[in-house]
Amino acid sequence: MISPTPTRVGLLTDLYELTMAAGYWQCGMDQNVATFELSVRSLPLQRSFLLAAGLEQAVEYFRQLSFQPEEIDFLRKHPALQSVKPGFFDFLAQFRFTGTVWAVPEGTVVFAEEPLLRVTAPIIEAQVAETYLLAMLTYQTTVATKAARMAQVAGGRGIVEFGTRRAHGPYAGLLAARSSYIGGCRGTSNVLAGFQFGIPTYGTLAHSWTMAFEEEEEAFRQFAEIYGPRAVLLVDTYDSVEAVRKALRRKLPFRAVRLDSGDFLEISRQVRKILDAAGRADVQIMASGDLNEYVIEELIRQDAPLDLFGVGTDLVTSRDAPALSGIYKMVEIESGGQARYTAKFSESKISYPGKKQIFRFSGPGGEYARDVLGLASEEFPGAETLLEPVMKSGELIRPLPSLDQIQARAAANLSRLPAPYRRLEGGDSYPVEKSQALKDLLEVLRSRYIPTPAAAGGPGKE
Amino acid sequence: MISPTPTRVGLLTDLYELTMAAGYWQCGMDQNVATFELSVRSLPLQRSFLLAAGLEQAVEYFRQLSFQPEEIDFLRKHPALQSVKPGFFDFLAQFRFTGTVWAVPEGTVVFAEEPLLRVTAPIIEAQVAETYLLAMLTYQTTVATKAARMAQVAGGRGIVEFGTRRAHGPYAGLLAARSSYIGGCRGTSNVLAGFQFGIPTYGTLAHSWTMAFEEEEEAFRQFAEIYGPRAVLLVDTYDSVEAVRKALRRKLPFRAVRLDSGDFLEISRQVRKILDAAGRADVQIMASGDLNEYVIEELIRQDAPLDLFGVGTDLVTSRDAPALSGIYKMVEIESGGQARYTAKFSESKISYPGKKQIFRFSGPGGEYARDVLGLASEEFPGAETLLEPVMKSGELIRPLPSLDQIQARAAANLSRLPAPYRRLEGGDSYPVEKSQALKDLLEVLRSRYIPTPAAAGGPGKE
Repeated sequence: MISPTPTRVGLLTDLYELTMAAGYWQCGMDQNVATFELSVRSLPLQRSFLLAAGLEQAVEYFRQLSFQPEEIDFLRKHPALQSVKPGFFDFLAQFRFTGTVWAVPEGTVVFAEEPLLRVTAPIIEAQVAETYLLAMLTYQTTVATKAARMAQVAGGRGIVEFGTRRAHGPYAGLLAARSSYIGGCRGTSNVLAGFQFGIPTYGTLAHSWTMAFEEEEEAFRQFAEIYGPRAVLLVDTYDSVEAVRKALRRKLPFRAVRLDSGDFLEISRQVRKILDAAGRADVQIMASGDLNEYVIEELIRQDAPLDLFGVGTDLVTSRDAPALSGIYKMVEIESGGQARYTAKFSESKISYPGKKQIFRFSGPGGEYARDVLGLASEEFPGAETLLEPVMKSGELIRPLPSLDQIQARAAANLSRLPAPYRRLEGGDSYPVEKSQALKDLLEVLRSRYIPTPAAAGGPGKE
Repeated sequence: MISPTPTRVGLLTDLYELTMAAGYWQCGMDQNVATFELSVRSLPLQRSFLLAAGLEQAVEYFRQLSFQPEEIDFLRKHPALQSVKPGFFDFLAQFRFTGTVWAVPEGTVVFAEEPLLRVTAPIIEAQVAETYLLAMLTYQTTVATKAARMAQVAGGRGIVEFGTRRAHGPYAGLLAARSSYIGGCRGTSNVLAGFQFGIPTYGTLAHSWTMAFEEEEEAFRQFAEIYGPRAVLLVDTYDSVEAVRKALRRKLPFRAVRLDSGDFLEISRQVRKILDAAGRADVQIMASGDLNEYVIEELIRQDAPLDLFGVGTDLVTSRDAPALSGIYKMVEIESGGQARYTAKFSESKISYPGKKQIFRFSGPGGEYARDVLGLASEEFPGAETLLEPVMKSGELIRPLPSLDQIQARAAANLSRLPAPYRRLEGGDSYPVEKSQALKDLLEVLRSRYIPTPAAAGGPGKE
């Protein structure tokens, strides 16, 4: 099977989520309500902000979360689960997500340690979702962020996502198309992304078209005959400048040419000159091939006459920062009607307890000034709260925004983020402070779980 | 929809594949047989070999390649295809893959410019597959190669793939589990990979289990009660060394402990000492968290008492080299019963013409000595030929090997690759030379398509 069908999402998790699930069930803790929060521990060196993306697929996951009979049979026979009581597998057959989800809307600018998503549900429901949620949200957030960096330096020039072939499998390409669009790309080459998400799709011809004809000129003529003024001619199969001359000589209809190799600055200047001299100032020039935000910025700085950029590898793999340190940590657990806060104190991997909220303060012009990461129960007058309710009792509370609305939100968010936080390199660190209540809560828990130096090693502590 | 169903693979392509397809159809060229080859243009700086993977999913793709009625409706309305004659869409409704596929078996060591796969089919069938094949084969090859680097430095110690949460979406995680296993991992944490591919799955508990109980000791006791001697205790939620002491004090059954943060060398030594002193020399120690082949090599060099490594992010994203320069180039096309060779001469992006074969010469001890990249019609006595027939008339010629057979092939191939080509850094460049016949053929084509300096710019050439 090439891709799991949606009914397979139950098993698309780490085995320990299921061994723990069986454990909670067997301890009679399966109805204990727990809260988990998903955040990014720290930003990669090359990033000073993130653009949240992937929530729509997270919601779809929760709605489809279940275990099919043949999957349950597989688990029954799993060596790791041989000591689990059979009732657990019957429990899985009825298993559905019934919890509450809060999240920052897609297209929101966020920073390290800020929760993108918060799940409150019977502990097994919240636990098994960890793996899928992390992969889905951090990847889409990674690509949306990379796209935003490119769109920003491109100014009004369009960026089109061309990267499915270089993505981590074809389905990563589909997700990349979606999240690139959120980040500000004009469209994608991925046709399924057009079909499934309504994203504008772009593309005309590859080198193979030219190679399929004995002469490049004949290849262009045939293509222009079919596609007329829609045609974008790829001109670098043999010699870019010469190819443009051929197309002009035949007075072919075409609306753009695409350069896919060579010195883009030099060639685009030559091509622009030839086009203008032939009275084709209307023809646009597109560049593709090993582009990223740094190359695009430099080309624009040098005033290269390029109108469009097709970006693949660097965008869909976020090559300079291909992963985020996403975490999904339990912050509260209820038992016997009482809530208990939870935190982790591993060296350099502290997680803060309690249901949290992001409080964002803006300056007089609406520009983002600072965030306070506080407990959800706190109030900070004048601040926007970023986490919103999304699902309740396992159902969507209200329809999710359209992809165009998400893209517009991203653009609006980015326009409110002051320039020092948007630099490609060496961006300032946006101020995110923890509220006093949150810091106090952590210290209360720390004093409880970490023995003081005096007590360390002593048997009396426990 | 979270993931495309298998029937959606037709649209999982770049739009230009379909505009070209329509063009070929409209030019009456749709039955012209073309041959495309998929290869990696150059190895990333950090790699001196590749381990081929992903063929099984490529074969599944070809078998499922089709267009559903609602997909065809979508294409009919696509702005880019408005000038295409309606007959093309009827053609798509009947479209199936009927071609021939040759490939190097999964688990084969390959190098830059060597074809991993060769497709010969009516041009549209071969063309539309480009995007999917590149994404599937290059990603799995990337991860299998990364896994092989890790398995090699780990020696007999096991590596388990733990990375789905850090993969580029959950389906990339599934592919990573498969290709990591090919590269030499002992298993994966991804349960669906176990269900779907039969890969051994590993995992026991996360920090959240410990945090769900008021006391760490109680968390361990409960877990050990259910899982007994199968339990692997995660000990770093609060303090790793102290946690091991607690487990020993209660004389809990467990077979291993997992460290997930801190100084692995120092902590593993302390933990080993405590375990041995308590008569638990049988308990294994596993490390996980930000591991890669360099860190593992260094830990082993320092004689860290670690038995198992759980690797996530660096493996599934191949963080130091997250993409390969995969290309899929037309090398021959037939028309009117006559074959014509094709090549591309863009600056620094030359593609060699003709159906090719990899001829591998070995030394007296069976060790790989050098490859010749030649035309498929050539013969080199004494050399193994690496490309084998896989599909004919759109059908699999014989069953594909099992994943365990592929893993064994990979191990055998790697054992024949001399050490200088397997170094983690600064590996020697394995000799791959082009045959004289191949070089001659390229020059014949070059003289035809690239004007000589004297002729450049002159109108006489065409």
